[in-house]
Order: sequence, then C-alpha cells, then structure tokens
Amino acid sequence: MDYFNAPGRNHLFVPGPVNIPEQVLRAMNRNNEDYRSPAIPAMTKTLLEDVKQIFKTTSGTPFLFPTTGTGAWESALTNTLSPGDRTVSFLIGQFSLLWIDQQKRLNFNVDVVESDWGQGANLEVLASKLAEDTAHTIKAICIVHNETATGVTNNLATVRKILDHYQHPALFLVDGVSSICALDFRMDEWGVDVALTGSQKALSLPTGLGIVCASPKALEATKTAKSVRVFFDWNDYLKFYKIGTYWPYTPSIQLLYGLRAALDLIFEEGLDNVIARHTRLAKATRLAVEAWGLKNCTQKEEWFSDTVTAVVVPPYIDSSEIVRRGWKRYNLSLGLGLNKVAGKVFRIGHLGNLNELQLLGCLAGVEMILKDVGYSVQLGSGVAAASAYLQNSMPMIPSRI
Amino acid sequence: MDYFNAPGRNHLFVPGPVNIPEQVLRAMNRNNEDYRSPAIPAMTKTLLEDVKQIFKTTSGTPFLFPTTGTGAWESALTNTLSPGDRTVSFLIGQFSLLWIDQQKRLNFNVDVVESDWGQGANLEVLASKLAEDTAHTIKAICIVHNETATGVTNNLATVRKILDHYQHPALFLVDGVSSICALDFRMDEWGVDVALTGSQKALSLPTGLGIVCASPKALEATKTAKSVRVFFDWNDYLKFYKIGTYWPYTPSIQLLYGLRAALDLIFEEGLDNVIARHTRLAKATRLAVEAWGLKNCTQKEEWFSDTVTAVVVPPYIDSSEIVRRGWKRYNLSLGLGLNKVAGKVFRIGHLGNLNELQLLGCLAGVEMILKDVGYSVQLGSGVAAASAYLQNSMPMIPSRI
Amino acid sequence: MDYFNAPGRNHLFVPGPVNIPEQVLRAMNRNNEDYRSPAIPAMTKTLLEDVKQIFKTTSGTPFLFPTTGTGAWESALTNTLSPGDRTVSFLIGQFSLLWIDQQKRLNFNVDVVESDWGQGANLEVLASKLAEDTAHTIKAICIVHNETATGVTNNLATVRKILDHYQHPALFLVDGVSSICALDFRMDEWGVDVALTGSQKALSLPTGLGIVCASPKALEATKTAKSVRVFFDWNDYLKFYKIGTYWPYTPSIQLLYGLRAALDLIFEEGLDNVIARHTRLAKATRLAVEAWGLKNCTQKEEWFSDTVTAVVVPPYIDSSEIVRRGWKRYNLSLGLGLNKVAGKVFRIGHLGNLNELQLLGCLAGVEMILKDVGYSVQLGSGVAAASAYLQNSMPMIPSRI
Amino acid sequence: MDYFNAPGRNHLFVPGPVNIPEQVLRAMNRNNEDYRSPAIPAMTKTLLEDVKQIFKTTSGTPFLFPTTGTGAWESALTNTLSPGDRTVSFLIGQFSLLWIDQQKRLNFNVDVVESDWGQGANLEVLASKLAEDTAHTIKAICIVHNETATGVTNNLATVRKILDHYQHPALFLVDGVSSICALDFRMDEWGVDVALTGSQKALSLPTGLGIVCASPKALEATKTAKSVRVFFDWNDYLKFYKIGTYWPYTPSIQLLYGLRAALDLIFEEGLDNVIARHTRLAKATRLAVEAWGLKNCTQKEEWFSDTVTAVVVPPYIDSSEIVRRGWKRYNLSLGLGLNKVAGKVFRIGHLGNLNELQLLGCLAGVEMILKDVGYSVQLGSGVAAASAYLQNSMPMIPSRI
Repeated sequence: MDYFNAPGRNHLFVPGPVNIPEQVLRAMNRNNEDYRSPAIPAMTKTLLEDVKQIFKTTSGTPFLFPTTGTGAWESALTNTLSPGDRTVSFLIGQFSLLWIDQQKRLNFNVDVVESDWGQGANLEVLASKLAEDTAHTIKAICIVHNETATGVTNNLATVRKILDHYQHPALFLVDGVSSICALDFRMDEWGVDVALTGSQKALSLPTGLGIVCASPKALEATKTAKSVRVFFDWNDYLKFYKIGTYWPYTPSIQLLYGLRAALDLIFEEGLDNVIARHTRLAKATRLAVEAWGLKNCTQKEEWFSDTVTAVVVPPYIDSSEIVRRGWKRYNLSLGLGLNKVAGKVFRIGHLGNLNELQLLGCLAGVEMILKDVGYSVQLGSGVAAASAYLQNSMPMIPSRI
Repeated sequence: MDYFNAPGRNHLFVPGPVNIPEQVLRAMNRNNEDYRSPAIPAMTKTLLEDVKQIFKTTSGTPFLFPTTGTGAWESALTNTLSPGDRTVSFLIGQFSLLWIDQQKRLNFNVDVVESDWGQGANLEVLASKLAEDTAHTIKAICIVHNETATGVTNNLATVRKILDHYQHPALFLVDGVSSICALDFRMDEWGVDVALTGSQKALSLPTGLGIVCASPKALEATKTAKSVRVFFDWNDYLKFYKIGTYWPYTPSIQLLYGLRAALDLIFEEGLDNVIARHTRLAKATRLAVEAWGLKNCTQKEEWFSDTVTAVVVPPYIDSSEIVRRGWKRYNLSLGLGLNKVAGKVFRIGHLGNLNELQLLGCLAGVEMILKDVGYSVQLGSGVAAASAYLQNSMPMIPSRI
Repeated sequence: MDYFNAPGRNHLFVPGPVNIPEQVLRAMNRNNEDYRSPAIPAMTKTLLEDVKQIFKTTSGTPFLFPTTGTGAWESALTNTLSPGDRTVSFLIGQFSLLWIDQQKRLNFNVDVVESDWGQGANLEVLASKLAEDTAHTIKAICIVHNETATGVTNNLATVRKILDHYQHPALFLVDGVSSICALDFRMDEWGVDVALTGSQKALSLPTGLGIVCASPKALEATKTAKSVRVFFDWNDYLKFYKIGTYWPYTPSIQLLYGLRAALDLIFEEGLDNVIARHTRLAKATRLAVEAWGLKNCTQKEEWFSDTVTAVVVPPYIDSSEIVRRGWKRYNLSLGLGLNKVAGKVFRIGHLGNLNELQLLGCLAGVEMILKDVGYSVQLGSGVAAASAYLQNSMPMIPSRI
Repeated sequence: MDYFNAPGRNHLFVPGPVNIPEQVLRAMNRNNEDYRSPAIPAMTKTLLEDVKQIFKTTSGTPFLFPTTGTGAWESALTNTLSPGDRTVSFLIGQFSLLWIDQQKRLNFNVDVVESDWGQGANLEVLASKLAEDTAHTIKAICIVHNETATGVTNNLATVRKILDHYQHPALFLVDGVSSICALDFRMDEWGVDVALTGSQKALSLPTGLGIVCASPKALEATKTAKSVRVFFDWNDYLKFYKIGTYWPYTPSIQLLYGLRAALDLIFEEGLDNVIARHTRLAKATRLAVEAWGLKNCTQKEEWFSDTVTAVVVPPYIDSSEIVRRGWKRYNLSLGLGLNKVAGKVFRIGHLGNLNELQLLGCLAGVEMILKDVGYSVQLGSGVAAASAYLQNSMPMIPSRI
C-alpha cells in the first residue's frame, strides 16, 4: 500500500501540505467517536476559543469547516456578499487568480487589480478606487495575504490604513492560507472582516479543515448577504453554537484532536516564536538563493514571503525538471512553478513544523539538483550562506536550556 | 488530551461515524505528502476505478470530495439542476428533512411527499405525480435510500420501475450515506443518476470524504445546470482527471490511503459478504428488540433497515436518558432520537466494520440500560434471541477455515 | 501484511497479552530517540518512582528489564540466590511448573510442594517445612500469586504470616505476572522480597518489559548471591541509577512512553478502582459459567482468580475445539488448556484494560461456541446471570458523571 | 507526555537506536493478539526464513529473542560454551570491552587481545595464538564486527582465513550489532558460528529483538555447553520450532509485525543496495570530517566503519559539549565519546533507514556546532565535500525512475 518507496524520510518542502509533527500524528491515531457525546462539544469549545489566538482576534467568531482552502474561500464570500456585489481583488499569482475566478463564478462583480507575477498587490490602485467610490459600490476588498505561487506577501496593515483613510465601509476579506500561524497576522488590529486558513499549511495538520474567522461586521453582513449557501453557511454553525452541540453535520474526530495537539504545540512554542522561526528560515533560504546566483521571483524585499520562496531558474533550465529530479533522486519534494511561471520557477516551502537542519538538508539537495540539471552552482555555497546566518541567529531550544 | 476516559473500548453504535478497522488506522498513520508527485495521482487513479464497485457501476464517474454528506448532497444537486427546477423529494425523517431543506435553500421548487416518520417514501404519490407530469416539469427525484433517523430503507428498484413505466426523464438522485457499502445498492441496474455516500459510514473511515458518483446522464445535465457552484463543481475535477493530476485542490493524503485500505478490506471480504453481514447483524438486532417487547420505529418489514434500528421506548421513558446512561455507565454510544422522534426512540447503528460479538455486547448493554431506566426487561432475553439466530446463520471466517 | 483478516474487532480474551488501550497505542506511535539524551533519563526517573505504586511499595527498588516474564523470573532468582540454595516452590499449574523447571535448571535445590491442578498452594506443607527448618536451609519461598493456567490465586498474606510465625528468614519471591495491577497485591505489607510482572498483562502494554521490584532485603541478598548473571544483573542497573542515566543497555523508547501512558491511565482510574473492576468482571464471568452448568477448574472459592477463569468442559468435548472455533468463527481469542488440563479446560482472561460490555460480548460468544461443539447450553443464560450482577454493581464512569 | 519538545523533526544520528521508517511504525501500530493463534506462528515462520537473508546464511538457525544486544551476546556465549572455556576476545573499544566483561562474568577464561582504541582487532596475535594452540584449548574467537564506540570495522574474512590456515576448530562468534544489514556480512561464506544483531540498529526497529543466528556447528556445541541458561536457551526455542508454535514464551506482537515490515522494505530496496547506501553515506561523512580539518578516530582506512564515524576533536574542546549543544540548540542527536575516548570524540551514526539529505542536514548542523564551541570551521565546507561526492555517486530511486 506504499507507492514509490525510497530509503529514509521524504523531505517535504512544498508550500503545503507540510510536515505533521509526531505529536499530532499520535493525537489523530484513534477510532471514531460519537460527535454528539459530551466529549466532542467540550473539546470543540476549547478549540473555538483557542483558535482565535492564531488569528489574533478576541472579537472574531471562528468556524472549523470540513473542507479545504477553496471551500473556506467560498464560505468567506457567500456568507458576506450578494450576487452582483462589487469586489476589488488583486491578481498577483495563481492562488489569487483562482480566488478571483471563484468570485466571478459566484457572480460577483469583480474589479481585478492586476500586478506582474512577483509583485505585491497594487495598493495605489486600491487607494484611487476607494477615493472614487464615494457611493460605496465596493462591497469587499479581497486579498491574498501571501501568494503561495510567487512567494509574495502583501501588506495588510496598509490596506487597512487606506480603507480608514477613505472611511470606506467595504468588508476586508483575507486569504491567510499560507500565512496564518506563520506570518505576522493581526485580525483585530488590522480590522480584517473575514480571515481564513487551511489545516495543512502552517498548522501542520492533514488537509481537511478550512478555518474561517468572521468579525462582528462580517457576521452582521450575513443578514443581508444573498449568495446561495448551505454547506458553507455560518448560520447553521451559529445555531448549534448557541445550543452547545457545535456541529451542524459530522466533523472529523481525528482532525479535532489533531487541531488540539497542533494548537498545544504552537502555544508551547509561543506564537511569536513560531513566527520568528519562519522569519529565520525564510531569511536563510533567501541567503542561499543569493549565494547560488539565482533570483527570487519576488521583485522587492518588502514583499518577501517568510513561508515560501519562489526561485527563478536560468532560461535554459526547465524548473519542472528540478522538481522531478528532487523527487526521483533525492526524495525531496519541491513546489512546481504554476501557470505563468511554470517552468520558470521552483518553490521551496518553509512553513509549518520545521527546523533549521531540515531546511539545510533541503538546501543541500537543491544544490545537487541544480548541478544535475546543468546549472554550475558551487556545492555548499547556499548551505554556507544560510548556516552562517542561522548559527548567529538561532536561539537555544527553550525546553532544553 | 483525552477527555472523559473510561476503561476498555468505547462501544460505538451510533449510525455513524462508525468503528475504523485497525488496518485503516494504520494506513492513515502517516505524514503529509506532495499531492502533485506521481504517487498521489497513481493512487487516486486506482481509487476512482475501485470505488465504482461499491456503487455497482461501470459507467458512473466518481468524485472524492473533501467534505461531508451534506456537502455531497450539495454537489449532487448543484451540478445537475438549476434554480427553480422542480424536484420531487420524500420527507420521511430527519435526514430527508435536511436534504429537502437544502434543496429549498438552493432555490429548487421542491415538491415534498411526506410520510409518517417510520414509514418509507410514498411511491404511489410518486407514480401519480409522474403520471400527471406529461410536461416533464419534474427535473429530479431526490430520495434517501436509508433514512438514518428512523431506520427506514426505501425501495429504489421500485422508483426506477415507476420512472420507466411513465418513461419520465427526471434525474434519479440518491442519498446513499447510510446504505452504500452496507445495503444492496445497484447504481447501473437501477438507473441512478447521482449516488453519494460519506466516508464515516459503511466505509468505516474518518469523516472527510463525500463520495459522489454521477451517471453519464448526470454528467450531461451539468452542461445546462445553472446552480452556482465552485467548490462542489464536478467540472473542475473532470478537467484534472483529463490531465491526470486528478485534484483541483489539496486532498487529504491520509484519507486517500485510508480509502485504499478500506476498499482492500471490503474487496477481501467480498462486497456481497459485507452486505450479507449487515443483513445478519440487523436481523439479530430486530430479534432482540422483539424479545425485549419493544417496537421498531419502522412500521413495515419491507422498510426495515439493515444499517440502523430505531427502537421505540414506552411513553413513560425518555429515550435520551437511555443514550445518556449508555455513555455514562457502559461506555456505549447509541444514537439519539432526532426531531419528531426525540425522546421517543433510540437508535442502534449496526453498520461498517463490525462483527457479531461486538453487537451482542451492545445488546447486553442496552438490556442493562433499559432496566436502569425502569423498563422491566428480562436481562439476557435480547442476547438470547439474537444469538440463537446468529449461531445458526453465521459463516466461518473465510481466511481462517 | 495482515494475516487472517476478519470483520470487526478481535475479541481478545486470552489471559495475556491483553488489549492495549488507544491512549497507550498512541503514546508508543513514535520514532526512536537517543536514550542518552536528558529526556529519557528524566522520564525513566518518573517511571521508576511511579511503578512502585502498582507494587504497593515505598521501600522497593524497581527494574524495567527489556524481557518477558520468564526473564523476570530469572532475574528474581539469580540476583538473590546461589546454586545449591534450597527453595520451596509450589507446583499448582503450568506456570508454576515452568518456574520450578527454571529453578532446577539454575541449579537450585528445589523443594517442590505439589497440589492438584485447580487447587492453591498447600500452605500447611509450607508451615511444616518451615517448622522443621530450624537450621534455615530454606533460602527462598517461590510462589506464583496467580496461576494463569488454572485460574488459582494464592493467599500471600498467609504465606507472610507463616514465615513470621516461624520467624523464618527465607526470601519471599512472588511471580505476580497475572496479578499485579489487577489483584490486591501489597509488597511492603506482605513483606514480599521480589515481586515481578510483565508489561503485556494487567498493565495492558505490548510484551517486552519484565518489571521486577526488590525489597531492601533482596538487594542485600545480591551481595552474596553467587548465581551467574549479566543481562539480568540488578547491580548493572543500580550503577546507572546512581549516575542518573539509568540504563546499562538500550531500552525500548516506545515501551517507556507506553508505560508512562499506562500508568497515567491506571492512576486516573485509581488502582483500587482498577482492582475492583477486575473483581467485578471475574464475578460476572463465574456467574455465567455457573449458569451454563459448567465447573470452574478452581476447586475452592478462596482461590478464585479475578484475572482468569479456567472452565472445565464435559468429558465428551475437547476444549481445544472451543478455542479453535472461537477464532475461526467468532473472532474470539480464548485461552487453551495447558499441559495436564489440555483438552479439559478453556480459559477466559478478564484482565487489563477491559470493560463490562466487552466481557458480555465474549460470554455471548462462548455460549454460541458451546452450542456449536455440542454442549446444550441455554443461549443467553450466562449473559443474563452476568448482567444481572453487573447491572446491580457497576459504578458510573467517574469522568462522565 | 512529551518531554523537551522542539519544533520540527529530531535529527537522530546516534549509532542506535536509529530512525524507524513510517512503514514500520504503521505496521507496529496495533493491538495485542493471541500469540497461540494460527496467525503468529504463520508469520513467525516467514520471519525465521527471511531473516536468514540478512545474515547471508542458508544453513543457520535464527532466534528472535525478546531482549537487547547484551542479551543476544549472553545467548551466543551460554549456548555454546562452558564455564572455564578459553575464548580469544579483542578489546578495541567500549562495546568489545563490555562483551569481554560479560565473558569474564560468565566464567570463561578470556584471552584478551587489546588494541589501541581506534585500531582494529590485532589478527596477527590471533594467528600466533592459534599457531601455538595445537591442543585446541581455545574454544571460541569472539569478535565485534563493528566497534560502535570507535567506528572500527574488523575484517572477518581474515579471521576465517587464519582459523582455516591453522585448521583450528574454535567457534567463531560475531557481534554484528552495528553491522548486520548495513555492512557486508556473510555468515556462511565466512564460517561464522554465531552472529547476532539488535533490532534498533540497521533493521531500524525499536529496541527489543536480539536476533541470534547459529550455525549447525554452534547448534552441535549446545549439546556439551554447560553454561547455565534458561531464558536464553536455544533448546527451548528449538523445541517449539519443531512443534510449529515457535515461542517458548510471549513474543512482542508489535515487533514481529515491525520486523516483517522492516524486512519487506530491505528486500524491496535490495540488501546489496542497502549496503551500498551505507558505504556511500559513510564515505560522504568522512569527506566532511576531512574538510573540517578533523581526524577520524579510526586509525587506518581498512578499518573505516560504514555505520558510524567517530570524530576526534581538538584537545581544547570537550566533545560532550558538542553533543549537548546539538541537542539543546539544533535538535540533533549525536553520539557521545565513551570511556577512554569520552570528551575526545563525538560520533555520527549513519546507519539504518537514512538518506543523503538527512545526512547533509546533520553535517550542516555539526558545522554550526563546531563553530559554536570555538572550532574555526569553514561553514559549508563539509557539506560541500560530502555533496560533491554524493552528487556524483547517488543512484536514482529505483521505484521512481
């Protein structure tokens, strides 16, 4: 029942799904349970309370949908908007593209603000659109916090500032799939109305939970939002929250226990330490890329993503060949270039439950692959650059001091 | 991280989620993987091929949605119908009620055919409606094969006969959540257009896969179906089936391996033997209920369900107390009475990976609970009736002969 | 990789190895670790401290040998005795026989006190031997607390009384393999010098830990004990206890974490509650046997074992056929009759992490098997007798009240 | 229940216990079973047959003792020798020292041939001893194939040649704990009489199986071997082999299934490929050590071990500090220097289920640690040297080509 076995561990460096810590695997290694017994509601209550911390919200209301990020998107949109509503959406890569596509198919009037792939959202355009929109026809700003395809992180604090500047009432909807629990994210402080993530990203769980968090304003919006929704309807959840049974349909028992374990691990490490670790691993990765003489797909430092790095390959190399070779020779899983950047970039995911030596093993592998495919890299150069930085900046493991 | 521990095994007899066999737990005990590597598509291909067998279809196209049964319903409806379309739907219990509610919220024109809870779908009414509908305004017949709330199994072969008799082109949509892989179900023979189930039922997996199977006619219907859909859209899947990567978004790696193991177990036992085992356990349960002097909620033998038995309690007893006591004293999980039959029935789920002695342990537990709550049952009477039947009818375990 | 699959759970009622609770399986589901890191010694320290509680000792010194019960025996004997030393040993069944055989092979001068199989140790003979032994030639009394082959529990308090009466300095060595953590056992109060058990019995772990506990007097005895020993030598452990690294050779990381989880579960339930549960399940089993019209192999009530019941079958039935049939038809694992009682008894193990409904499922199975093999049992009769008692005597589950 | 958590995977590079592959963890994730049912003997039979392949023997008889390497030693000695028997034993490091200590405590007349730690066994002395021993007073040659403390591999083929040259009948007993299944080992070709290994080494299982393989000559020797033995007695096993139940006492069900999975993985990779992988990883490690300007504890290339490298640190550095720092800062577990080389060497274990990128991650970690502790290593230098070699010599993963 295992396909394509290879000796040793798989080195999983796609930007999701990511490595699951053993503690979480253990927590999920269990039989089903009656989700209507007192146990599951009791646990769900703690989960709903605790999951707010990863959104940095106290006023938000979280929903743990048995779905993926795509479903979480749909939930965010259909609960707050009506067909025909105007949204401003930023197209900067494959995942923002897919979300925009979804918005269109859900019959919103999508005002697409496009940037080159490798650039962040064009917030100047946003400002001018808001300035013009004195009639408040814009109902929502939809933005991907971290574009996984290009390794670009958008500045959400600035989005909020612009909205405030124009005192614009548009909802602020954020895809935090590859950011929340890894990058600095502040739902309340930034006035985000709906934020969402998926369990298989920085939470380091299997796929299967689309975690959506709604501000009071977003909950208010559901009352007038006419988009058709059933499975993704927040109101069905809210009804059961009130009763105290929490679930309108059967949740995955295993994922609930897994989420409990994942949150416990994150809180033990400290969310700020988790974020600092992501910053550190990302910086090390970029130093390696630089040492190899390659370019980051992300065009400006202000957009550098701390969860994924998209590396541009020389024109004479097909980046898919790099990914293929990683899998075939080194048991290393790297991210493909998608759509516009297919063949041009490969991606190193450095998010979730990951440490420095795992990353250095990956970087050593990338070096060998680069050589394999005909790029004359100096073997060890990236590892040297990365480890010089890490050896200076890594803390001791707190539980072991 | 474990709540409400109790010595020994939990006796899980709710009609889902059900017991997961150890082989499946083992198969799912694994790290994440890159779902874009060659391994996952190769496995998905076998799953899509093999899962057809549990639907008894060769012409159907299966979809493995990361969702629950509720999501699978939504997928079945939105891919084949347009807002305003007339459906004929049978209200016979809580789950058919919920599906009808969904149909209404999805803006179909639902023609509800109601029966008393405990009765099957009124197919005479269906016949008369079809007879009248020479204009073919009825676009779909929506029917729950097995109503989990009342333990009623509808006769799908008759539905097909009626449709054929009137040469009516309506789509035939079937909720097989608590039937498929446990009851006799024949998608092709009965001309079912969409059938669906959930992983946590007879497949004995965790919750998280909504398995939907579409006939060629159903696939054809998607071309004109105007219901809004994105996450649940079959066409996104079909696009990736063609490419051979299979997944429009990230699947649960663990559930795929789990499904592989579950199917392997079912095929090893033989699907017909699996169904015969369900028939046997159900018959034994009904004999016990009879011996206790209690009534089956299901009003006629033709509707008796082989996956769940709803037992009517005397009016002076609150059936919720039975369920509560099972959990608090016997580590036994029984199904609550829902909605109209709340307090009046409790349910014994006997589906999935289960054997005779497990059931007899449950029945012994129910006897003690009945005595606890003041019903003067003869202890051992139900077990005696059930085991007299089982001892006569059980086969030897094939692998051990 | 799974042999002889059968639907549903295996009903494991051999008197060891017994069912492992999910919490323990989860705890052991882990990679290896460096046993010389600070983590393993830190955990070992808590284990050594906590394991004393299951022996009811504060003065004893425990050893966690990577071995089985047979190895634990060898450790008990070779660390305290010298070749030629006279031991008094009670032969009452297969396991006492094997221990006596070991004592002989280790060159002790074994003074065997034999009883019929089904009787307890003849303590009158012990008294007379001690009375005569004014020269103190008897160096040790070796007694099996609970003879697993016949379901006989010896009275250790009486042994101590006799030793005290004659002020005899012999060491008091106890095989507690199928008793400790299930039956009332009091190392300090009863002045036991070496007690031992195996992980796969009442602790409900996999096989692999032979847990031996030595009194101060036993430790003193090691100084003059001339039996050859290396692997089983306590002194190698004591040396590393002093250093704080604890292990003279590599332990099983998984079993240590498993033991931690097993002890946590036992302490959560309360050791006295665990023992009361064993008393209850055993009583229920004996009532069933009585209801079937069969005889307990144990000849007097004072010796009835609360961890295993050996049931005598009528002479026209081969008890092995009962065991074979349990496995082939009911997925039920019962204990064979061994040696002198082979073919004459079968055994029901009711020890470890087990609850009432599990036992009733087993009893229902035994009834059907008895009928299968031609014994005209009234189906349901044993279950009725057992559940009448249980329904009266079972407590609510404390964590769920 | 988890102590000293740290983000990401632990990098386990002690020379045992080693990383367990997920396939093996999965296989062991199971409840206990009756070891007297037909299933366990059936599986044991395949294990005993298949395990011979890792010894490269067809005539040997294997035993799967529930014990550690120390117990396996004791089994090898006590089954073949009598107290007072003369053995020739080579002291070249901590593990050969411990085995010699065991031989002395078992009352053999041990003729110790000592070498400097870092050197191999002095086979010239062996030759001269055999030459002189025309009376055949030497009953056994005891040699550690791979001394784990110093990373020294002895030449067993030469031992055999010398024995043959003098036509000396001494038994040839080999500790293959850190060699078998990783280094070239040929029981039959080299005329080894007893070879042994432990499950937690190259087999990549948890600790708990001491696997001993006996030649026909060794089995013959048991008939006259007077050493006291019970738990470790081969004859008890042979008795049950004949009966077909295989086990004189309870085995670990989990380890048997684990061994089945481990062997399946090894055979799938191919034992010769496994060995080649060890050779490759070891060579890479030595190149890194050289690049760092450090010395291998092993004094000549002919003795270089392909499973563990002991690295000599400069006199101003305490090697224990390196190990401590690995654990505290990098989640890297390295081997301590033991006894004579304590503080002077640290050890990198590179055996078992391990791949190239895992090793490179470790080497990158060692570089940072070296810098931490004040050794002015060029970061990346070792990784560069190792990966230059690996990139040239690594094969594609066969299952993925």
